[in-house]
Amino acid sequence: MLVLHPQSSTPLVVQIVEGLRRLIDEGALRSGTKVPSIRQFAHAHDVSVFTVVEAYDRLVAQGLLVSRPHSGFFVRRRARGPGGTAALPPAGAAGTSFDAMWYLRKVFENRHLSMKPGCGWLPGEWLFGEGVKRALRGVAGDELDFGGYGDPKGFAPLRRRISDALAEQELGVAPEQVLLTQGSSQALDLAARRLVRPGDVVLVDDPGYANLLFGLRFLGATLVGAPRTPQGWDLAALEAAIVQHRPRVFFTQPRLQSPTGSVAQLAQLHRVLQLAEKHDLLIVENDICADLDPDPRPSLASLDQLARVLHVGSFSKTISPNLRVGYVVAHPDLVEDLAQLKMIAGLTSPELTERLANGALTEGRWRKHLKGLRERLARAHELVARRLDDLGFEIFHEPKAGLFLWARHPDMPDAGRTALEAAEHDILLGPGHLFAADLQPTPWMRFNVAYSSDERVFAFLESRRRAV
Amino acid sequence: MLVLHPQSSTPLVVQIVEGLRRLIDEGALRSGTKVPSIRQFAHAHDVSVFTVVEAYDRLVAQGLLVSRPHSGFFVRRRARGPGGTAALPPAGAAGTSFDAMWYLRKVFENRHLSMKPGCGWLPGEWLFGEGVKRALRGVAGDELDFGGYGDPKGFAPLRRRISDALAEQELGVAPEQVLLTQGSSQALDLAARRLVRPGDVVLVDDPGYANLLFGLRFLGATLVGAPRTPQGWDLAALEAAIVQHRPRVFFTQPRLQSPTGSVAQLAQLHRVLQLAEKHDLLIVENDICADLDPDPRPSLASLDQLARVLHVGSFSKTISPNLRVGYVVAHPDLVEDLAQLKMIAGLTSPELTERLANGALTEGRWRKHLKGLRERLARAHELVARRLDDLGFEIFHEPKAGLFLWARHPDMPDAGRTALEAAEHDILLGPGHLFAADLQPTPWMRFNVAYSSDERVFAFLESRRRAV
Repeated sequence: MLVLHPQSSTPLVVQIVEGLRRLIDEGALRSGTKVPSIRQFAHAHDVSVFTVVEAYDRLVAQGLLVSRPHSGFFVRRRARGPGGTAALPPAGAAGTSFDAMWYLRKVFENRHLSMKPGCGWLPGEWLFGEGVKRALRGVAGDELDFGGYGDPKGFAPLRRRISDALAEQELGVAPEQVLLTQGSSQALDLAARRLVRPGDVVLVDDPGYANLLFGLRFLGATLVGAPRTPQGWDLAALEAAIVQHRPRVFFTQPRLQSPTGSVAQLAQLHRVLQLAEKHDLLIVENDICADLDPDPRPSLASLDQLARVLHVGSFSKTISPNLRVGYVVAHPDLVEDLAQLKMIAGLTSPELTERLANGALTEGRWRKHLKGLRERLARAHELVARRLDDLGFEIFHEPKAGLFLWARHPDMPDAGRTALEAAEHDILLGPGHLFAADLQPTPWMRFNVAYSSDERVFAFLESRRRAV
Repeated sequence: MLVLHPQSSTPLVVQIVEGLRRLIDEGALRSGTKVPSIRQFAHAHDVSVFTVVEAYDRLVAQGLLVSRPHSGFFVRRRARGPGGTAALPPAGAAGTSFDAMWYLRKVFENRHLSMKPGCGWLPGEWLFGEGVKRALRGVAGDELDFGGYGDPKGFAPLRRRISDALAEQELGVAPEQVLLTQGSSQALDLAARRLVRPGDVVLVDDPGYANLLFGLRFLGATLVGAPRTPQGWDLAALEAAIVQHRPRVFFTQPRLQSPTGSVAQLAQLHRVLQLAEKHDLLIVENDICADLDPDPRPSLASLDQLARVLHVGSFSKTISPNLRVGYVVAHPDLVEDLAQLKMIAGLTSPELTERLANGALTEGRWRKHLKGLRERLARAHELVARRLDDLGFEIFHEPKAGLFLWARHPDMPDAGRTALEAAEHDILLGPGHLFAADLQPTPWMRFNVAYSSDERVFAFLESRRRAV
């Protein structure tokens, strides 16, 4: 967009400020237009993101750009939108801007970086592609009905299988109470749309699952954090938050939590349910790592039997995230509401992917695959924890299972800044503020043990250690 | 639930009223509980729905049940929810009850009825299952990556193909502006979530696409109808509605519209865009029947080139609804917002189904299939229109293409009532009030020509004619 001259005696920051001012004055950048994100601009012009941050800050100060809260940068709007193109209304159910933290998410989600210790998924070869491929060959010979939309709740044999599997985990649900969804993220979104209204206070794990937190903010919720501890939650703080803020819903992941890897202990589950009963809370339990847990362990739903708990699961961490098959089980009344909401949000889910998940689960090698996956994750946990420890990282909890380690380093006080630097080295980090209820800077980072063994990742972290 | 005695001298209505009152008094039906829908109750007890309607009405009058507006029936709530089970908050972004018209939708969506002139999809054998099956065999040999979530916007080769196809329809969009979705319904839902906030006035086709209207109501929108005519819209009424209610967004289906089958003419498209410009409206154009249109014809988007128009398409009417592959194309800024919202709503869409749609489209028989499908629909239109005409139906418009005929009969003043009666004869009708912005009773009904050739359907309609 601009031609910059790195060798010029005019600082790059000033060149950018003057260049953008000229484009705005000339009308090439019209009022209301979103300007490139800081990262896009930095990438397109081959300059540091810090240079761009500084330049954008000055343009905001000069009244040429506006920075929407937690959003991008826009040319300050004058009377109305440019002729011909509509001025977009602000997004979000409560008028909140929903492209919150867009540029940081771009960094976070930049899947084109070659090293991804911050990502949230497993490598393809760790998953059950072989099972899906065998199921695919089976399905190709099936009599498939290509007319109609299938069952709104999803492919019935898979719902029965989930019902059976949950029964083994001491959670009794009829197949009619199982609603298949486009991964656990749709399940969480449906639950949120059903239970949360703009302005509602919602209790969330702090730190918690970033995509859910963004979704809840988009719905206009005010997030109140329940601080995680290595054993579950800080129960005193949790109760204080309930008493003070009176939330109606608590979204939580008790087991092998993202991002902390922490696992809530039995007595904690019991206590949280007591609090829910006392304060009339509903709980949405995200339990997508249940199959990665080497120990059979109760869930909130297995204690409560769905009186106050909605229970979410997925096959993304065990079969393949790309199939997009997850589920929610809930009280019969509630599941009917969620099913109707699923219709609104996209009618049914594709029967084919649900058949493939079902096929993979019924395949003889499934249990063996799960066992191998757990062992592989346990080994990766040991390795990555040791390396981080050697570098001087403090590790929140060592679950030796699931995907994540949560760690911080005294020399890296702002993980967001470290993540921006890492991106310049082709490394995707998981900076902690993205998982924070208040989005404030923090030294904590999430490490996916399956993607954290590359020596260049450790070399980068080592260099940051020395950098201070 | 209740034991009824049809031979008793006590009328069934009274037996139901007394029986339910007893269950409520004894606490077996607790306050706040949703009672079975009218249809469920009628079915479970083998009585007429009219009997149940009468009984529920009396229970409401006696203060034992409440009928939530456009919703189901509930035991009147006392102080708070029953111990142990949470009292559910009211649903809907604006506190509106979202299970609006649940019992009528149950009738409408009752896919287990053996005759479905009211349904919205094509029979499997009319669609392109063969193409999908061949694509499936191809994909089984592909190198699939089962790790990761794929591209948030969807499988890139399909996005390129859609971009090319739209270019043929004189709509220039880069593949980056194409966002793949879980059918057109997710595309509409994403657009609505991005553009509509609780309390907003939204302009919709009246009658219009039922699932969309329910979705908009759930978001808390106030719907204002733009009356459809056989040639498009009543432009005077449309402009008056805009001036009076100041909507920011218009959701419309110009071509082969559901439910009316009407097709907006070129001058109408132009005029609507002029009004949009003058009154600063955005337009969400649902064009899912484009490929069923035998005539190449402009779309709103092809005139406007996405300045104010979001354009939605789908393969559900041509390949298979069960694949759940649709798309939205929009202005570059807007499509980024929609992509982020898609992440919130379920991360990515499954690459496999997108590969299959792409495979079917690239398959040599695709154009031949489309041609055959259009011819088959044209023949069905002729047949069904003639038969309805013979029965004395007035037909709104005869498009001779697409799926639908919209018709009414002087002897059937309330299509909702006729649809309830039809359900007792194993026939799913499409009663017009479900498509109405105000949900008010109407004699109009939607006939899907692909499902309306069964003689028993005509026999039922004939009987209703004589019934008055």
